[in-house]
Amino acid sequence: MDITTLGTRAQAASRVLATATTAQKNEALNAMADELLAASAAIGEANAQDVSAARDAGTAESLLDRLTLTETRLQGMADGLRALADLADPVGQIVRGWVNPNGVAVRQIRVPFGVIGIIYEARPNVTADAGGICLKSGNACLLRGSSSALRTNRQTITALRAGLEKAGLPADAVQLVEGPREATHELMTARGLVDVLIPRGGAGLIQTVVENSTVPVIETGTGNCHLYVDSAADLDMATTILLNAKTDRPSVCNTAETVLVHADVAAQFWARAASELAAAGVTVHADERTRALVPDAVAATEDDFVAEWLSLDLSAKVVDDIDSALEHVRQYSTGHSETIVTHDLVASERWCAEVDAAAVLVNASSRFVDGGEFGFGAEIGISTQKLHARGPMGLAEMTSTKYLVVGSGQIR
Amino acid sequence: MDITTLGTRAQAASRVLATATTAQKNEALNAMADELLAASAAIGEANAQDVSAARDAGTAESLLDRLTLTETRLQGMADGLRALADLADPVGQIVRGWVNPNGVAVRQIRVPFGVIGIIYEARPNVTADAGGICLKSGNACLLRGSSSALRTNRQTITALRAGLEKAGLPADAVQLVEGPREATHELMTARGLVDVLIPRGGAGLIQTVVENSTVPVIETGTGNCHLYVDSAADLDMATTILLNAKTDRPSVCNTAETVLVHADVAAQFWARAASELAAAGVTVHADERTRALVPDAVAATEDDFVAEWLSLDLSAKVVDDIDSALEHVRQYSTGHSETIVTHDLVASERWCAEVDAAAVLVNASSRFVDGGEFGFGAEIGISTQKLHARGPMGLAEMTSTKYLVVGSGQIR
Repeated sequence: MDITTLGTRAQAASRVLATATTAQKNEALNAMADELLAASAAIGEANAQDVSAARDAGTAESLLDRLTLTETRLQGMADGLRALADLADPVGQIVRGWVNPNGVAVRQIRVPFGVIGIIYEARPNVTADAGGICLKSGNACLLRGSSSALRTNRQTITALRAGLEKAGLPADAVQLVEGPREATHELMTARGLVDVLIPRGGAGLIQTVVENSTVPVIETGTGNCHLYVDSAADLDMATTILLNAKTDRPSVCNTAETVLVHADVAAQFWARAASELAAAGVTVHADERTRALVPDAVAATEDDFVAEWLSLDLSAKVVDDIDSALEHVRQYSTGHSETIVTHDLVASERWCAEVDAAAVLVNASSRFVDGGEFGFGAEIGISTQKLHARGPMGLAEMTSTKYLVVGSGQIR
Repeated sequence: MDITTLGTRAQAASRVLATATTAQKNEALNAMADELLAASAAIGEANAQDVSAARDAGTAESLLDRLTLTETRLQGMADGLRALADLADPVGQIVRGWVNPNGVAVRQIRVPFGVIGIIYEARPNVTADAGGICLKSGNACLLRGSSSALRTNRQTITALRAGLEKAGLPADAVQLVEGPREATHELMTARGLVDVLIPRGGAGLIQTVVENSTVPVIETGTGNCHLYVDSAADLDMATTILLNAKTDRPSVCNTAETVLVHADVAAQFWARAASELAAAGVTVHADERTRALVPDAVAATEDDFVAEWLSLDLSAKVVDDIDSALEHVRQYSTGHSETIVTHDLVASERWCAEVDAAAVLVNASSRFVDGGEFGFGAEIGISTQKLHARGPMGLAEMTSTKYLVVGSGQIR
């Protein structure tokens, strides 16, 4: 089906969703979860074919793992849909309201965007997650998954659509965009049919979408996150936070990628941190001054400070003062999450005021920058752009607003 | 100067603005107003040259009027800057905040975007208005005005920059983008240097910016605004509102362009409204059923229902029910402001729920959809897109947010 047909169907579905009650949407989410589990054999078989084809095509093991839908993962997808049913519905929430002196009442209320396009890479769980989040926020979605997961996505979407129909909502609220590469381009330029595009995947995918879309895009970002150990830091705390931020889950975007250590405390800090990082399997890529303190460290290249490692690698540098740390962050940060460890109030305030990022942290692990940790319940991604949404995006960030202006005959 | 140089200077200025106090910014706004008035002779002379050159080039009178800066208009620009000083500063406002169960405190605060690019057409007052709004919201701006206003804009910006310097803020907070057409393209693709682009002008300009920008764009929109006279309308009220919405200021985007009248009340409504509209100089472009009731009406073409007249022209149609009215609006609306006049609660609620627009009005003139009328004090435009801001954009809409996450050593 071409994008015009898909988009027109999605728009029609979105009009129904926009005025659907929360109870109807919740019923659909639970029915979608039921249908997913009921279809587990079909989905599993499709997934086995996808994985086998990918293996034959020489796909790397780590990517094969991402592509694989185990029973646990399918159960997780169903649980995720049910959890969405338990969250508050953002649609209809009053953002602000007032009465003008002439008696005209103005309310700004949350409304769905309409149709959301999501372009994503191999992980097939995104299909259910994104479909569910869009539904709960009242949006129809066009899902463009990876061709390597096509069979899995088809079966998954068939199940989700069956759930929607059981709950009396239009199946076209969730549609898969199939077809060759050109289909992605058509989706990116479907102005008037698609209200927002959200790419989910690596830096390359996001770059492509941003550069080629005429539909407004929300960037979910890459994270080259820094941790700055100030001269006034509690060094035990700094070590604990760094270990957590680096090793708790190295493959995600809120993980620490570079540590900057104030020269006054560098020797003392590395005396303990080097061995703890080594014990955790972390390879340190360091500048000269750090290498003098960490004999095992590898010499860092310029690229290492640019890198979003997403692995047990860590760039390290000694800085002379907080100004140098701020300057380094300004130069290399992707604007995701930037942390200072310090007991100095002035340093903490400067960090909060001067660092330009979605999240700025003081004495806490950047692993907290997450929709779940923020209490949003569900998350479509973490925005590193400044327009519309910045940081973890929950259900409220999946909505627009409109003004209701109610009078009794007033004119200007 | 090329965009890279301009953008780099703007970024440096934006870092100073981001942490400037409200008092500093207000001092600068007042100094900018002083300098504008002090430079009135130079600005007036430059403007006379621009107007003369435009006249020689055969520019239409209406456009020459837009280009002309009278003393009253210059005074208005200065007054506008001083009025901005009186408005609340959005920067630093806490949007929401909470403490997680583990004691980590999270605050979402308003921060400037950084660098805003504004691409606009002939009106030279935009130079001061946009420069002032950007400054108050903590943003540096790159202003790309029309080449026909180049001399005027140069002198205006020289005055604004002098005011900034007098208040101890960087002059590069306001810069003019000169040069040939390619400069506009460079501005639209200056990702990483420019955070947001706001086009201000006609539909053609906005379309060009949307299609060619890789920088995120906020569309300020065109308004094909409808007024639906329901069968349960107070017809006197409907006539009064229509006259106001059509004739109060026909050249602006929140003016009514099409009236849809329920068949049951069409004869009665037009019996009075036709003569009042005619007396106000309005030409009615009507469908067959309306023409049977309004002998003076011109036959409407399909294009007339698409048109944003911005003049004393009005399209008119008889509809059989609210569903037909909603369908017409769905097909032709630009999503700006859509009005129902009715005393029927169900009709009013359906209109509010089903119309997809920045503002949905009941029994009030669409002329109220305006930053000033909403109490925002200043307005950079009215957004008709759904991302980030929708409807009148005040100072708060000129900001992004960031999360401050403060702990005492917590890890995940």
